[in-house]
Amino acid sequence: MSDTALLFIDNSDHNSDLYYATGFLAGDAFLYTQIGNEKILLMSDLEYGRARRESRADTVVLTKTYSEKAKAAGVERPGYVHIMDQFYKERGVKTVKVPGSFGLQFADPLRELGYKVEVTPDPVFPARVIKRAEEVAAIEEAQRVTEVAVARAFDLLRAARIKDGKVWHEGKVLTAEKLKETMDEVFFKEHHTCPEQIVAPWPQSCDPHNRGSGEIAANVPIVFDIFPRSLKTRYWADMSRTVVKGKATDGVKKLFDAVLESQTAGLNAIKPGIGGEVVHRACVEVFDRLGYKTGMSVEGNMEGFIHSTGHGVGLDIHEMPSVGRLPSVLDEGAVVTVEPGLYYRAIGGIRLEDMALVTKDGSRNLTKFPKYLEIA
Amino acid sequence: MSDTALLFIDNSDHNSDLYYATGFLAGDAFLYTQIGNEKILLMSDLEYGRARRESRADTVVLTKTYSEKAKAAGVERPGYVHIMDQFYKERGVKTVKVPGSFGLQFADPLRELGYKVEVTPDPVFPARVIKRAEEVAAIEEAQRVTEVAVARAFDLLRAARIKDGKVWHEGKVLTAEKLKETMDEVFFKEHHTCPEQIVAPWPQSCDPHNRGSGEIAANVPIVFDIFPRSLKTRYWADMSRTVVKGKATDGVKKLFDAVLESQTAGLNAIKPGIGGEVVHRACVEVFDRLGYKTGMSVEGNMEGFIHSTGHGVGLDIHEMPSVGRLPSVLDEGAVVTVEPGLYYRAIGGIRLEDMALVTKDGSRNLTKFPKYLEIA
Repeated sequence: MSDTALLFIDNSDHNSDLYYATGFLAGDAFLYTQIGNEKILLMSDLEYGRARRESRADTVVLTKTYSEKAKAAGVERPGYVHIMDQFYKERGVKTVKVPGSFGLQFADPLRELGYKVEVTPDPVFPARVIKRAEEVAAIEEAQRVTEVAVARAFDLLRAARIKDGKVWHEGKVLTAEKLKETMDEVFFKEHHTCPEQIVAPWPQSCDPHNRGSGEIAANVPIVFDIFPRSLKTRYWADMSRTVVKGKATDGVKKLFDAVLESQTAGLNAIKPGIGGEVVHRACVEVFDRLGYKTGMSVEGNMEGFIHSTGHGVGLDIHEMPSVGRLPSVLDEGAVVTVEPGLYYRAIGGIRLEDMALVTKDGSRNLTKFPKYLEIA
Repeated sequence: MSDTALLFIDNSDHNSDLYYATGFLAGDAFLYTQIGNEKILLMSDLEYGRARRESRADTVVLTKTYSEKAKAAGVERPGYVHIMDQFYKERGVKTVKVPGSFGLQFADPLRELGYKVEVTPDPVFPARVIKRAEEVAAIEEAQRVTEVAVARAFDLLRAARIKDGKVWHEGKVLTAEKLKETMDEVFFKEHHTCPEQIVAPWPQSCDPHNRGSGEIAANVPIVFDIFPRSLKTRYWADMSRTVVKGKATDGVKKLFDAVLESQTAGLNAIKPGIGGEVVHRACVEVFDRLGYKTGMSVEGNMEGFIHSTGHGVGLDIHEMPSVGRLPSVLDEGAVVTVEPGLYYRAIGGIRLEDMALVTKDGSRNLTKFPKYLEIA
C-alpha cells in the first residue's frame, strides 16, 4: 500500500473531486497526491503561500525543489511528470492510481518512467456521494434561492397580459431573455451564478437543452430548468417547472398530468439501497401505461421521454449517482434529481424536476416550490 | 491519413478546443471526431436536435445507433469507447489522435480494442493561437467592460476619505468585497462574468492568487487583477492595476516604478516570431538591474518576481502562447498579457498587466486604462 499513491494533475475549479480532497480552489492545474492518509500538494512559487494557508493538505512542497532535482538528474525541461518522478522516488512510490479523467499526456510518460498507472473507477471519493448535513444544507440554501428566482419570474408572467397570442408586460412582448434577467438579478444579489438557465417556450423545449430565447407566446408550455451554483459554498441546486401563460390545450394538460404522475412514481420509488435504474423504470412505466411513446419522429426528431430521470447534485451539477437506464445505487445521504419529461413537437414539452435526499426511510424532497400548469 | 481520426471525449464548457472546433456548447461530455476535414458529432437523444441546429459539425449521428450495434456485437453495457469502436469500424479508422487532456479511462480501453492512441501536442488547433479580427474585437470588447468596471471601483476609492489609517465611504470602512461588488454590477449589466476577481491589499497581494478580502487600509498598495469573460462571445480579457489610497511609501513608489519599467521593457520586446521567453527575460533584466531579488525569505515565503510574465488570452483565460521561462513563439495575431510584478512582505506588492496583440511591426496594446499609483 505504501508504494501506491493517488495522483491528480488538474485544476480544482473544473475537477470537483480535487476540490473536495484539497479544499483548494485554483483555475490552473496543480499537483496533488495522496500517500496513505497524507494529503500532499506540490505547488509553484506563485501558489505555494496560498496553498499553505487555504488548503486542507498535510504537506505543501515547492515544485521547484523537484524540478531542480530533475535537472540535476539530466532532464532538460522538467514538467509535471518529472517533478512527480523525483518526489515519488523519495517516497518509494511505484504504482499511481488516477481518476478516469487523468490526462493521457501525463499517463504515458509516467508509464515510460516505469510507473504502473491505473484508473480508479468513479466515485474516486465514495464519501462525496453521501452528503454530510452541511452539504445538504448548502444544496437546500441554493434551492431556496432558486425558488425565490423562479417565483419572481412567475410573478412577471402573472402580471403580464395576453394580446394577439403574445404575452405583454409594461408595453413590450415578454421574452425568455427578460424572464432570465429577472432571475439573474436574484442570483446576483444572493451570490449565486446560473450561467445556463433554461426558459424554453415550446417548441424550443423539444430540445431539452435548448436554453430558450425570444418572445413568449400565450397558451403554450414554457419549460423553466434553473440550476444555480452558490459562489460561497460551490454547491448547486436544480429545479424544473413548466407553465402556460393563459390556457393550456387538453393535449398539454394530459402531458403535464402524465409527467407529474411519472415524477411522483419516481419520487415514491426512492429508498436507500435501491437502484437508480429502478427509479427510472418507475417513471418510464407510467409513460408506457399512458401510451406516451419515445422514438424518432418521421421528421427525424427524437420525441417522448428522451432523457434519463435524474442525476446526483453536489459540487457538480451532474454527479453520481445516476438515475437512468444504467445501474446505480441510491445510498442514504445521496441527493438526486427526479425530472421526467415528455416532448412532442405536435403537442408540447413538459418537464418537472425536484431534488430528493435519500433518507433512512425513503426520501425527503428538498424542493418546496408548488407544481401547477396554468398562470392566469 | 484516412485511417486516422482526431477524437475528443469531453465537455465544451471546460474544453475550449472542443468549443472552438464544434461551436457547440455543452456542460456534459460528448463525442467529437474529425476524419480528414469532416467534423462529426455523436450525440445522445437529448442533444441530437440541438447539435444539428447549433453546431458547426458536418455530420451529426445518434450514439444510440452505435451503442445498439455494440450490443448486437455482444457488449453488455456499451459506453463511449464501444460507440466509437463501432463508428470507427464503419470508417476504417485505426489510429486515434487525442488532446493531452484525453482521459485515461478512454485511452486504455481504446488501446485494448487495438487502436493506436497518440497525444497531439498543444496547440491541437494552431489556428486558435492566431486571433481573427472578430476574436480580437471580442477580447477588446471584454477589455472595455473591464475598464469601465475598474474605473467605477477607483471612483469609489477617490470618493472615500481616510481616517485612523482606514478608508471610509458613506460611513463605513471600505472593503475588498465592496469594491468587487461595484465591479460585479458592471459585469452583470454588461453580460460578463468575473468569478475570480482579485482586489488584494498588501500584504494579501504577496500571494498573487490571494483574491483579497476585508478592510482597505490607507497608504498601502492594493492589487486589482480583473479578468472577466463575455457570456456572449465566451472570450476573456485580463488587466491588473495597483493603487494606493492616500500616500505611498518611498519603497512602494520605487517598486511601482520598477514594475512599470519592467512591463514597458516587456511590451517593447514583443515582435512577431520572437520567443515568449525573450519577453520574459526583458522583464527580469530590469528587476535584476534594479537589484530586486527573487527567492525564499527567511520566514519561508517566496518573494520578488514569483510568477511568469504572461499568457495568451482568448477562449481560455490562460492559453498559448506562454510568456515565461519556457520557450514559446509569439506569432502575429497572438494576444498575450504582459504582467510583471514584485512582492515583498516588508515593502509591498505591485502588479501591472496589459494585453498586447502581436502585429506585423511589433505589438498593439489592447489596454487603454492609465497607470498611476496614488489615488488622493
